[in-house]
Amino acid sequence: MAKPRDIVLVGAGKVAEQLGAQLLKNGHQILFVWSRSIERAQLLGQQLKTEASNKMELVPDEADLYLILVPDQAIPEVAAQLSGHINSNALVMHTSGSTPSSVLSPFFDRNGVFYPLQTFSPGRTVNFATVPICIHTAKAEDFAWVNDLAQTLVDKVYAVTDQQRTQLHLAAVFVNNFTNYLQYISQEIMREHDLPERLLLPLLTETIAKLEELSPDQAQTGPALRHDQSTMERHLKMLEHHPEWRHLYQALSKGIQKDLSES
Amino acid sequence: MAKPRDIVLVGAGKVAEQLGAQLLKNGHQILFVWSRSIERAQLLGQQLKTEASNKMELVPDEADLYLILVPDQAIPEVAAQLSGHINSNALVMHTSGSTPSSVLSPFFDRNGVFYPLQTFSPGRTVNFATVPICIHTAKAEDFAWVNDLAQTLVDKVYAVTDQQRTQLHLAAVFVNNFTNYLQYISQEIMREHDLPERLLLPLLTETIAKLEELSPDQAQTGPALRHDQSTMERHLKMLEHHPEWRHLYQALSKGIQKDLSES
Repeated sequence: MAKPRDIVLVGAGKVAEQLGAQLLKNGHQILFVWSRSIERAQLLGQQLKTEASNKMELVPDEADLYLILVPDQAIPEVAAQLSGHINSNALVMHTSGSTPSSVLSPFFDRNGVFYPLQTFSPGRTVNFATVPICIHTAKAEDFAWVNDLAQTLVDKVYAVTDQQRTQLHLAAVFVNNFTNYLQYISQEIMREHDLPERLLLPLLTETIAKLEELSPDQAQTGPALRHDQSTMERHLKMLEHHPEWRHLYQALSKGIQKDLSES
Repeated sequence: MAKPRDIVLVGAGKVAEQLGAQLLKNGHQILFVWSRSIERAQLLGQQLKTEASNKMELVPDEADLYLILVPDQAIPEVAAQLSGHINSNALVMHTSGSTPSSVLSPFFDRNGVFYPLQTFSPGRTVNFATVPICIHTAKAEDFAWVNDLAQTLVDKVYAVTDQQRTQLHLAAVFVNNFTNYLQYISQEIMREHDLPERLLLPLLTETIAKLEELSPDQAQTGPALRHDQSTMERHLKMLEHHPEWRHLYQALSKGIQKDLSES
């Protein structure tokens, strides 16, 4: 068990809320919560039983780690503000999957990324211990320290370079955003034909459960894979009134045939 | 609890194996297994402790129900063969999601569809009780009987017309085949950049778990939804060497923006 650490949360959104709770639960101290919004800062401050403000000048300068948890595009500006109020030798990390650590370099030598790879939604609490944390530190000598901290929070911690993390974020868009959108399309098809929406949930659950044992190329099935032209043509005709979905059906089928078909 | 039934399985593939086991487990009798392949027929016959053959003339003619479990395109031919050997008043149902029940009408007045909506893979046993069974019978007077039988096997039984079932099968292609293919793409991106493949499993699991509580339109997140043009452009540049995936990224993002974005 690593030593308890003193941490400042710069940001008070969904990630700050769940990461903050996990830090507290595992014996670390949240010294302070800052947010552009005083309401959000105070709300999270109450939840985490700590001081909170929207004034950057109140951020204490003796923390072991400053975690920046604001939207991607706000990171450089918030880092610049923060740098005016804390020790220039402080360790400052952002938590974004798609932002290079280099945006922090102009302000802090000891910078890095502390990226919890999960989808966080308001009102939904994930089992944080199962969330992989991907770490990068600009200074090699900071890595072990941050790794120890992350290990107190979750089961799996990974060293991931800036370049790898960008690729990881791209892959995550396919796994999360695009996968969710396919479920939207299927749900709309169900609705339009008076079919109960939950009828497909067992299929979805098994589709994903399979991937614990099989790789996606082994698990692939369906009309495209078996070049079942008559079923595919019937489906395309059924999608006539949804030209975008029809186009997606074609593009996805073509991809399956190119990447995964034997013939 | 409905009366035990005497059932003949016409086909010995993945669905026959798991549906047959569930019938047996719930007190019904498998009278006979037929398959074009004598090896497959005998293998499943042994598993289900019953007679098996590749000769249609050996199929007994006193069963309560004949279930046709062969590939879609073989259904009409197998039904024709079967009709030469059993009572013309027998109840005969196929188990295909994408084939109309009418392909059985030339041969049997009492026909229908008994469609277990799930993805079945060799060597992987699903919890059959959670599989929804979708039923259609040509004769209204057969419905209650078949419904009772299905209720002995699974938790949820649905009355689904031929036209609805075709739509359901189309929706299932999005939920199963296309969803699986997106996981393939993300896995390849991970591999190409020496990232551990299992790193994204917790994200995938949560993406799906969310849908037990939220509808897909409520659960949608990501760069496309928030019109984050700079992230999308960076992603498209990263996909330069995979023009098909690049095209899919664009088409899926466009769909999310059209169907789900507020602006």
